[in-house]
Order: sequence, then structure tokens, then C-alpha cells
Amino acid sequence: MAKITLGRYMWERIHQVGVDTIFGVPGDFNLQFLDSIYQVDGLKWVGNQNELNGAYAADGYARVKGVPGVFVTTHGVGELSALNGVAGAMSERVKMIHIVGQTTRAMQKNNMMIHHSFGDKPDHQQYNHASRGLRFAAAELWDVEKAPAEIDRVIRECFLQSGPVYIFMPLDLSAEEVSVDLLKTPIDLAPEFDSAVQEKAVAAISDALAASKHPSVLVDALVKSFGAAVEARDLVTKLNVPWFSANGGKGVVDETHEMYVGVDNGSISHPGINAAARASDLMITLGYLPADTNSGGFQRKLEVEKTIHIHPFEVVVKGETYSNTAIKPLLAALVKALPSTPLHSIALPQLPPPRQPNDADAKHITQSWLYTQFEKFFKPGDVVVVEVGTSCFGICDVKFPANTRFLTQCYYGSIGYATAATLGAEIARREVAGEQGRTILITGDGSLAMTIQEVGTMIKAGIKPILFVNNNDGYTVERMIWGAQESYNDIVPTAYSHLLPLFKHPSPEKSFHLARNKKDFEAILASKDVAEPQSLQLVEFLTEKLDTSWRLGGALAARGKQSADYLTREGFVDVYGNWGLENESTNTLKWS
Amino acid sequence: MAKITLGRYMWERIHQVGVDTIFGVPGDFNLQFLDSIYQVDGLKWVGNQNELNGAYAADGYARVKGVPGVFVTTHGVGELSALNGVAGAMSERVKMIHIVGQTTRAMQKNNMMIHHSFGDKPDHQQYNHASRGLRFAAAELWDVEKAPAEIDRVIRECFLQSGPVYIFMPLDLSAEEVSVDLLKTPIDLAPEFDSAVQEKAVAAISDALAASKHPSVLVDALVKSFGAAVEARDLVTKLNVPWFSANGGKGVVDETHEMYVGVDNGSISHPGINAAARASDLMITLGYLPADTNSGGFQRKLEVEKTIHIHPFEVVVKGETYSNTAIKPLLAALVKALPSTPLHSIALPQLPPPRQPNDADAKHITQSWLYTQFEKFFKPGDVVVVEVGTSCFGICDVKFPANTRFLTQCYYGSIGYATAATLGAEIARREVAGEQGRTILITGDGSLAMTIQEVGTMIKAGIKPILFVNNNDGYTVERMIWGAQESYNDIVPTAYSHLLPLFKHPSPEKSFHLARNKKDFEAILASKDVAEPQSLQLVEFLTEKLDTSWRLGGALAARGKQSADYLTREGFVDVYGNWGLENESTNTLKWS
Repeated sequence: MAKITLGRYMWERIHQVGVDTIFGVPGDFNLQFLDSIYQVDGLKWVGNQNELNGAYAADGYARVKGVPGVFVTTHGVGELSALNGVAGAMSERVKMIHIVGQTTRAMQKNNMMIHHSFGDKPDHQQYNHASRGLRFAAAELWDVEKAPAEIDRVIRECFLQSGPVYIFMPLDLSAEEVSVDLLKTPIDLAPEFDSAVQEKAVAAISDALAASKHPSVLVDALVKSFGAAVEARDLVTKLNVPWFSANGGKGVVDETHEMYVGVDNGSISHPGINAAARASDLMITLGYLPADTNSGGFQRKLEVEKTIHIHPFEVVVKGETYSNTAIKPLLAALVKALPSTPLHSIALPQLPPPRQPNDADAKHITQSWLYTQFEKFFKPGDVVVVEVGTSCFGICDVKFPANTRFLTQCYYGSIGYATAATLGAEIARREVAGEQGRTILITGDGSLAMTIQEVGTMIKAGIKPILFVNNNDGYTVERMIWGAQESYNDIVPTAYSHLLPLFKHPSPEKSFHLARNKKDFEAILASKDVAEPQSLQLVEFLTEKLDTSWRLGGALAARGKQSADYLTREGFVDVYGNWGLENESTNTLKWS
Repeated sequence: MAKITLGRYMWERIHQVGVDTIFGVPGDFNLQFLDSIYQVDGLKWVGNQNELNGAYAADGYARVKGVPGVFVTTHGVGELSALNGVAGAMSERVKMIHIVGQTTRAMQKNNMMIHHSFGDKPDHQQYNHASRGLRFAAAELWDVEKAPAEIDRVIRECFLQSGPVYIFMPLDLSAEEVSVDLLKTPIDLAPEFDSAVQEKAVAAISDALAASKHPSVLVDALVKSFGAAVEARDLVTKLNVPWFSANGGKGVVDETHEMYVGVDNGSISHPGINAAARASDLMITLGYLPADTNSGGFQRKLEVEKTIHIHPFEVVVKGETYSNTAIKPLLAALVKALPSTPLHSIALPQLPPPRQPNDADAKHITQSWLYTQFEKFFKPGDVVVVEVGTSCFGICDVKFPANTRFLTQCYYGSIGYATAATLGAEIARREVAGEQGRTILITGDGSLAMTIQEVGTMIKAGIKPILFVNNNDGYTVERMIWGAQESYNDIVPTAYSHLLPLFKHPSPEKSFHLARNKKDFEAILASKDVAEPQSLQLVEFLTEKLDTSWRLGGALAARGKQSADYLTREGFVDVYGNWGLENESTNTLKWS
């Protein structure tokens, strides 16, 4: 019977489920089993500059490829450094496998004072406890007989829950051997659900649809997490009703779809959107994630009697819950159950023309102008990675081309995420689409600083994302919340022209671009170097310190007069007046 | 009755115990109480580029100043990013206060889906659980009546345990008011101990000393953690016997002391040291921390019958334990109890002359030569921060000048630590000593990459540490353990000449220095720019990929023939032959 090491077994299993790149940082307690990565045909290693960046990169990889992002650390020091990235995957339901190389079993049994531990009789599992509430499953490996099944179990859980799982691998155990035949049975990744409940839920949804005059759909972030984007597209197509997206659900279904209306943030939306959405007598949400940052600060008001929620694991039809379903098969069944001729014939709501911002004539780059340019710049097949902050609100003003893969931490909101996620996203994009499409990062100066060294990993890997950095002299989002002019919201002044040469970019001068004004920015976007990048491109653009997305200003102002007064007093740019909040009296659009 | 906000109260209390600088990163849930920092006379804010760096900086500050290092994060994203730095303080017993700005109590009570959370009914305390095993105390504040006492309690615990504590501060709570009069009663920071036990322990130690012929002392890392360096110095002075240090105990007592012998790593020591140490019939350890990395890989063999351990909270005299003591008062009592005329008259052991490395003639910089140059470069009053890796083993070959403050993570060993800790160390050094002394970092290329952005914070803060970066083309320490030539041990190629201009250093060209060989390095160390820095100085020096400290090679080779053969086979530099391991037959030095 042919044997392979347990380390090799783990990598083969991970490769079998669609993973081609492993991220992470080498450490004393994982080196030996990193060797086995090189033994798996088609699997490769991309080392990160630190472990948090490794977790973020794995997250970006997972979101683009729909398979787990996998990264390796050494126990304690590396394991804990990555924890924030793991919690992000927990919050945003991103498939992630964190493999921790642990001390040998002998060291553990003897409570030896091996480095990275603490105390005089250290429990080497003490760091494992830190992630207990931040993962869906963990293979705490100890026994080579049981280990393969444990590895298989957590890989399956990673898919079922769409979230982070751990594999804790004692270094010596990774060298023990298991039968190669175990690889022959594929891991069952099919979602679990109660088909009788699903049937009832589908019937209830169908009935509700039949009874409604103006149904609509809201596509949200968890659709993509649970791999149900195709089913969601099929649903809106077959229903042929107006549909909306939440911030985090942008691009899950192509926004070029003829019945797409726009981003529904309730009163913090483009004119007409809120009216159109609220006029619907039945809104079906798909993968709903109503966090403050994904709902215009809770401004999207859904009424129970007018709402169906198709959640990852349950369906709620006008307040009645159907538990133990699974969103992907349920949507497929729903699509199948719908009549081939749509029940409804509803014209797309006609929205008022776009508002004109009062800073339209500015020569400097304004937030109100910026995203009109990104909209022109994006092309079908692009991966767009957007940092939490000004950018993730601004991006909601863009209508994406077809087949745009959009990444942002719309709920967890850990700044620094987007830069390192771009590494993983671009690697995944290349694995899936090769030369088709580009990966585009939009981040801010404060966020970039958090994880800036990962630009080096991108350069070393020879990938060619386009990195846009909004230099607005500090943490503008924080300034909007409090301390507009306080020094704690200042950051380290940075001359980005030195970033590419720091990490030995092959053509640093040609690949760095600085836009001081609109004219510069337009020229940069039009240049072939940036639009059709042959190597990593870095575009720094300057905006004013107190200029941010109207959508963020609106969400903050909607908290109450005190918040709105703060923004006014401190002099933040207010391009539509009243912080972009809709005047109820003008908000009268009805369904046709 | 005059009132102040609870936020202000917290900062005043922290300032009262000797803290003048607060580190951290602003976030949505801490901004308002950051304002209060500016209200406290003599307290200032130094923002970090990310939260892990903030924790490391706080750690460096604490080690130099002997008071807590304090840093602030926002809950979840920031809190978790810093966790590895907190665990380091747990392992190394460094006083640290991590203040987490939490969501408002109303948000928490209503389980609102506020960003940074996870799940649809989030428990906002869920991240708090992650650090439970990695802290000594936590003030989970909720009620303004109880909060001041809770803050006081954890500050006291921080001193008593010498380790990390948390203050969880809901944002709205920080704005509530408490009586200013509460500030009048100082927080009691005196260690707790059983004075009757202490008396017995002192008597037992005195008796053992009287019965011994050749007593000795080993000073280790925990002495400094618990603020007992002065008492340790008084002890070795009054005893007037030979004394040694462990790696992590270097510099705790001045190495210029006439009875100092050297670093005792058992068989992984300079010739003669092990023989001298083992020939002692009674070794008193102070603050002993026998981790693998702090003991030559467990090569320092202490016999129970010949050993007294004075631990932070207990004393063990030849196997008999006296519990509930405290090292600082106990050492003071012991010094007081000792006769004013030393019981022993022992000549300092005469060590063989230093070995000559077989690469002494090299023109390139070798690890065997490097530390002879640092020894010449160091001056009294310097703070020396050394990264885990090649540097922390190499530094053991240096005899420090008087009043050297030495920082390294000798047990926890998280690479990246030293760079960010340098920020805190230099700020603390200036607070304590002003223009007296310098802060010197010795790190490696792989380690620097982890936390490289914190160099920017140093430049922004206008401080002037001297940063030495060993460019040896990757993770050399990992190469020694496994995968000498494997690509997972390669790092991102980096052109350090761009680092200072990236962060807008005022004189980047004059302040960057590249040493390709010994001649360069000597000239750089001799230059006034570096020796008497007027701004931050960066010195990159090149060494060969497979050259590292003999002391590390020895510790690895001592694991067994397989490890030694690996080092030989892969071609690591072996300057003394046999990986520097002592030949037992030549190791015959006895006490005079």
C-alpha cells in the first residue's frame, strides 16, 4: 500500500477542492511540511511579509475563486498575528483554512519551555483557545489514524459554513504516513439541508410572488459567500422584476442586467432608488447582511409583511421561518419552480436624472467626480478590491460592467485588508481567467500604511494589479466621526514614489503615477501603462482632507442633528446639500 | 464636587503611575476618549501605523521605563490585530495596558449589527474572549460607579503580575463623569507577599550560602520585569562572588561589574564559562527563564542540590519551595541580611583566551566579526534592541558597557517585534535620559519586513534611533532549521535606500548607510552621523545567507547528530569547528 506523509495528504486534499496557491509565513514549526507543498502537482507557495497579510491574501483569493483561501503560520506568534484576518472571514463568511504548525507532540506532552510559549509549564495549545469563538471548526490533530478524517471534516465544514476553519498540525505528526488510497474518495462538499422544508419554503415564496403586484429582489453579500451567484442571476432573470443590490452585494449579479436598478441604501441612495424599492410590495432579499455599513446606517427599512429573506440557512417569508435550508440549492429549486413565463411585467423604475454636485467645476480631484472616472475605467472581467473607508462608500456610485468581481469588507471593516487581499485576488484571478481582466485596488493612505509591505510580495510574485491610493492626508473617515482636525487622525507622511523602488519593481518610474488634479487623473487612466498593465502599477491621487463620499456623510448625518451639525461645523464637503439625504417630499416615485 | 470624564480619569491614573506616552491607532470606538489624552498635562499621543506595531511599541516603552506600556485600539479589528503583541508581553512579563474602545452600551445591549462584529445578533464582547488566556486582568467596564475602582484594580495587577491587562471601554461610558477627588488617593502598587515566608526563605538562602564554598549567581530576564535590577546588583556586589547572565538577563546588572563572568548557556558558551558555572557548588538564579532560546537549547544543566531559584513569586532552595514571596522585596531583604563582609573570597574564573574564528581573514562582514564591532560601538546609557534570530544569539558575544538597557524577546520570539519596540524604547529613553545615550536596533531583513512601516512613525516622531539591518537574503534562522535553499525561506528583495525617503526623512541620503564589507562597516560606525545621530539612521549591512551566530548553530547541533549533519551538509558557516560545541576534555576549568 503506497504511503504519503500526513503533510502531503493535507495539501493534496486542499488542492483537490480547487486551491492552487498557499499563502503564509514559514516558521520553526511548519517548515518541514511546507516541503510537501512542492510535491503536489499544480500547488504553489506564495510567502507573505507577515501573517496578518497572509490571512488577508487568503481571504482575497477565496472571494475571487470561490474555494478556500489557505494560509500557514507557526503557532503562537504567527497564529495570533493572523487572528484579525480570520475574524474578518468569520464576519464576512469567507472560506478560509488556517493551518498552524505546532510544536512536536513530545514537546507538548512535556510542557517544555519552547520559544513562542509562555509560563514555566506551558500548555502549547493555549493560543488555539484564542480563535475558538472565531472559527467554525478545528482539526486538533494528534493521532495519525484519525487525522485524515479530521482534515476532511474541516475542509467540508469550511464549504458548508463558508467561513474560517483551523488545522492544528504538530510538526512531527506531519511527517507520519497515511495511505495514498485515502485520496481516492473525494470530500463531500454538498450543502446539507432538509429537502421537505425546502419544498415548503419554495411553495411559500411562489405563493407570495403570485399574490404580489410589484415584487423586487435585493442581492446582498452572502449570496457570493455561499456560491449562489449563478442561481441569484437565474432568479432575477426568470422573475424579470426590478432588482437592487446592497453595497456588499454589488456585482454578484451583473449590473448590466436589464432589470437592475441600483444600490438600495434606503434614504441614503441615489434619488428615486429608495422610493422605488419601498414601493415594492414584496422584496426578496438574497444573502442579506444588514450591518450599519451595508445598509446606509440602517436606513433601508424593510417591512416584515412585504419581505422574504432567503438567508444562507433559512428562509423567512413575511415573518414565517423555514429552517434548515441552504441558499444555493434552494434558489435553484425556486428558479425551477417558477413558471417559464414571468408572472409580472414591470417596467424598470425611471429614476430622476443624476444630481449635479456643487463642486462639479473643481479642477482638483473631488470624491463626487472620482467614481465617474472609475466607472469609465472598469472593464468586463475586472476584479475590484475596495478598502473600507471613503472608497467602499464611493464605489456604490459606480455601475459595474459585466463580470465584475467586487471585494470589500462591508461588515467587518478592517482597514489594511484591501491591499493584502489584492495579492490573493489577483493570483486567483489569474488562475481562473489568465490574461482576461485586471485586478484594481482602491484604497486610502491610512489603510495602505497598515499592510504596505504586501506591495512587495506582489512585485516579487510578478503580478500586475493596479493600485489606486487616495492620499487625503490621514484617516478621513475617522475625521468625519470625530476629531476632524485632531492630530490623532494624522498619519505618517509618505512619498509613494519610493514604494516601488523599495521593493525592487522592475520599472518603478514608469509604473508610478501621481495625479494632483482631474486632468492628471484622466491622463493616467487613459495611459496604456495603467489601462493595460504589464507590471504592477501604483497611482497616487490627491483629494482634500475633508472630502469623502456623500453616501458616508449621509449615513452619519442621518444619525441625527448633532452628527449633521458636526459635519457642517467642521467644514466637510457637502456636495448635494443636506448631506445627500433625500427630501421626503421629492421622493414620490412609484411603480409603473 | 468637581467632575471629570471617565476617559480623562483613566488617562490621569495611567499618567500617575509614570506613563507619559500613549500608543495606538484611532478607530470609530475610541476617538472621543482620545481627546482626553490631550487634557492630561505631560501625557502625549503617538499613533502607530497598525495595531500590532502599537503593542510592540508599548512593550518597548515599558521595558525601558519600567512602567506599563499603554496602547489603544478599536474593538475587534484593532483589538485582535494587536493580540500577538499582547501575548508577547504575557510570555516575557512586560507591563502592558491594552485599552479597547468598544461600541456603546446601547449597541451592545441591542446586539446591533455594527461594523467590526459578526453574525446577525452579534455579541460585541466576542473579541474580548480571544484575549482571556493572554492577560492577567481585565476591566470590563459598564457602570460608571464601579469603573474607577476597576481601572485602578487592573493598573495594580499590571504592576503586580508584570504583564498585560485590558481596559474595555464602551465609547459612551467614557464620556460619563466621575469625581476628580478619586485621583487624590494613589493606586497602591506595592507587591504582595507573605513576610513570614520571606523571612524563612532569606534564612534558608543565607544558610545555604554559608555552607557553600563556591557560590555564584545567574541573572536572568525576569529580574528586570519585576523591577528588581537594583536589588540584583546589590546582591552580587555584597556577595562578591562570580556571576553570570542568561541571554535575556544581559545588562540587567552592569556587565562592567568586576565579578561578571559572562553568558552561561551551558555547553553553548564561550570556552571556560560552562566549566566555571558548573563548578560552582551553589548557583542562585534570579528571575530564571529557562526557555530553549534562553538556555542554549536547554544546555545549561542545573542540579537541584546546587541551586537556589529566586523566582518572581517563590523561592526554591535546593528543591524546597517557599511560596508567596515577591522577588524585589525578597532580594532587598536578602541583601540586608547578608553580612557586610563577604563570606567568600573567590577570584574571578580565568577564562581561556577567545577562540579565533576560521573566517577571521574574510573581507566581507561575518557574524563572527560583527559583534566585536558592536561591542566597540556601544556606549554607556545606550538602549540596545535586538531581534529574535541571528542577532539575539550574536549579541551574547558582546560585553555591554555600564548602564546598557537591553531588549529582546528571548522567550516569545516574535519576529518583527524589535523594529516596532524600538519606537517605544527610544521614546521612553528620551523621557528618562534626554540626550544621554542612544537607541540601537539590530534586526534582520526578514524581521524588518514584518513591521517596516513603523520606521515611518519614528521619522514622524522626530526621534533618532540607529537601525542596523542585516541583509542576508531571507530567513537565515529558518534556513538553519530546515529548507536551507528552499524558496519559502526567501523574502521580498528590498532596496533599503528607499525606506527613509518613503517616509519623508528630512535627510534621507545622509542618513542611509550601506556596508558591503568590513571596511565599509567600520567606517560607518566611526562616522559622526551614525555614532552621534541627529536624526534616525539606517545602516544596512550584508552578510552571507548561510552565516549566522555560532551560538545558534551550536544550540541546533546540540540537538543531535542529525541536526549537526544537516548544518554541515547544507554548508552553513562553522567558524569554530564542531558548531562551537565545547570539547568536554578541554573543559576542565575549576574554581580558584
